[in-house]
Amino acid sequence: MKIAVLPGDGIGTEIVAEAVRVLEVLDLKFEMESALVGGAAYEAHGHPLPEATLKLAKDADAVLFGAVGDWKYDKLDRPLRPEQAILGLRKNLGLFANFRPAICYEQLVGASSLKPELIAGLDILIIRELTGDIYFGQPRGRRIATDGHFPGAEEAFDTMRYSRPEVERIARVAFEAARKRSKRVTSVDKANVLETFQFWKDIVTEVGKEYPDVELDHMYVDNAAMQLVKAPKKFDVVVTGNMFGDILSDEAAMLTGSIGMLPSASLNASNQGLYEPSHGSAPDIAGKGVANPLATILSAAMMLRFSLNQPEAADRIESAVKHVLASGLRTGDIWSEGTKRVGTREMGDAVVAAI
Amino acid sequence: MKIAVLPGDGIGTEIVAEAVRVLEVLDLKFEMESALVGGAAYEAHGHPLPEATLKLAKDADAVLFGAVGDWKYDKLDRPLRPEQAILGLRKNLGLFANFRPAICYEQLVGASSLKPELIAGLDILIIRELTGDIYFGQPRGRRIATDGHFPGAEEAFDTMRYSRPEVERIARVAFEAARKRSKRVTSVDKANVLETFQFWKDIVTEVGKEYPDVELDHMYVDNAAMQLVKAPKKFDVVVTGNMFGDILSDEAAMLTGSIGMLPSASLNASNQGLYEPSHGSAPDIAGKGVANPLATILSAAMMLRFSLNQPEAADRIESAVKHVLASGLRTGDIWSEGTKRVGTREMGDAVVAAI
Ligand SMILES: CC(C)[C@H](C(=O)O)[C@@H](O)C(=O)O
Ligand SMILES: CC(C)[C@H](C(=O)O)[C@@H](O)C(=O)O
Repeated sequence: MKIAVLPGDGIGTEIVAEAVRVLEVLDLKFEMESALVGGAAYEAHGHPLPEATLKLAKDADAVLFGAVGDWKYDKLDRPLRPEQAILGLRKNLGLFANFRPAICYEQLVGASSLKPELIAGLDILIIRELTGDIYFGQPRGRRIATDGHFPGAEEAFDTMRYSRPEVERIARVAFEAARKRSKRVTSVDKANVLETFQFWKDIVTEVGKEYPDVELDHMYVDNAAMQLVKAPKKFDVVVTGNMFGDILSDEAAMLTGSIGMLPSASLNASNQGLYEPSHGSAPDIAGKGVANPLATILSAAMMLRFSLNQPEAADRIESAVKHVLASGLRTGDIWSEGTKRVGTREMGDAVVAAI
Repeated sequence: MKIAVLPGDGIGTEIVAEAVRVLEVLDLKFEMESALVGGAAYEAHGHPLPEATLKLAKDADAVLFGAVGDWKYDKLDRPLRPEQAILGLRKNLGLFANFRPAICYEQLVGASSLKPELIAGLDILIIRELTGDIYFGQPRGRRIATDGHFPGAEEAFDTMRYSRPEVERIARVAFEAARKRSKRVTSVDKANVLETFQFWKDIVTEVGKEYPDVELDHMYVDNAAMQLVKAPKKFDVVVTGNMFGDILSDEAAMLTGSIGMLPSASLNASNQGLYEPSHGSAPDIAGKGVANPLATILSAAMMLRFSLNQPEAADRIESAVKHVLASGLRTGDIWSEGTKRVGTREMGDAVVAAI
């Protein structure tokens, strides 16, 4: 088994280093190989996703990813910007199923913006389709408008689209996941406005018939954005498209108050996956040794479970993280009165020790 | 001056009735004429936006709108569903500028999901473009895919688009609004993924140069969804497209905890406007006389200010609402221990009395 390790930019290198140490101490049979990605790869090779990095990722069973991006690349042409690396990996590896858990850890309830009673015990799984929708739909570009409000004016456009098999496969992923949880799926759409999401809703409903044991409901995306604030615990598995999933998964993550704790997995049809923390590259705190490595360490656990078939090892990591939290260690992002503030490295040490 | 009164469905008739009483007691010189819209119009005339209703709205200086929709119309063909009425009004009247204030009233801080210190004093103005974007972009529909992941498969698609003049005019609305407030605008986009929103960002930046006294920043929509949860008070004027605005304005409204208090205005280039509460038709409580009429009453105040050039009358309504809140009256949605629960009619009575 082979893991491609792509630390990326900002705090990426620091947090991935800790996850790698945790993997090493488990002493499992796999190889790890690192490569540059994002801004770091652009600096070294002139491209955020160099051929060699892409090849390494494709040939691996799983990719452990840190984060990419920095303000300093904002002026680059779009194809050269760091975030193109993550889009390129998703597309080239066919990582269509993105798992974004939004969990509120018992000890971290106080870190949430929400009142404790609304957030304590939260455990949502957002499943975001990741290779379709308006992210990749063609045609897109700039042109002169021939109709609309201002024919003759310059305009820009993108294409939202979903095909039947794309919706079917992500729906199945959601129903299967729900079977292992509380057997409820909320499909989020905008069927009242968009052809794409009426189609989405129709197909999810059809696929739902294959899962009579799973309860399915549908919600408009604007309402979902509201209900997440009002009563997040009413959700269990949420499935939605790439664009809506981008927004809702981040909203849900921030609701927990501890985005520094949230892992993610992006899988393709053969369970090859890319694993990354839900948070970004945080260039403002990069290099200071204060970033929270736990989301990345928990991403490594997801990797062991989903792509490397090592569920016991995954359990060991997750238990170790719980143990470390219980012992009161906290990085700055989740620190509160009465707990002990530690840096990235010390947090990694503590997880290693707990394993 | 003429006001078209379109109560619509669900609680729409009840809440609009109270707003009409408030307008009447002000004894201003304008005419009001009512018509059916939404499900009610479909029942009576077979269409959610009958010609006569559309003509009434077009000929009026302003439209006072209640709400439309009910589960029972979910099975109708899309063009016959209640929400097509609101889309049709926006399109036909050219109501491109949607003002969605998200305000947290001092007395209602406790109704929010958020911790009091995060929400007390919140006063955001979200300006949502309302006649463009993927809501109205052509082409859209279903077809057989000729490229993408599954060529040959059935697919559905929509077109996101913005032309230069559309972005310019909504940007100006935002900058002008900011000049009357704290002189800060946050433009929300997804320029890292979408051509349409790179174009949006470029144009907002250009227009911003005409307003050197207004500070402009840009935020990705996923980050905006997070920052609204984390630190909503950091926002002042937010400007964004139709689709993102739909999601973010509802998220922000729910953050206040008192969506039953939030009015909205949708204006065209000649300040003709449609005014409606930010909440929906709430079919579950329709006909029970318990709905909160204040969002609709405050929408009538916005109407007086923006379309009917009666700022003093608008002030009188807004002061009356504040007075009523201070006196401790609450409808069920905003009720809390120690305040007096009243119905729709009593709340209307109280505002009328306070005027
Ligand atoms: C960096 C960006 C292209 C990306 C996305 O929009 O998918 C990010 O926000 C994410 O959610 O992983
Ligand atoms: C009813 C629906 C079409 C509408 C929209 O999406 O614009 C509503 O959600 C709104 O925000 O007014």
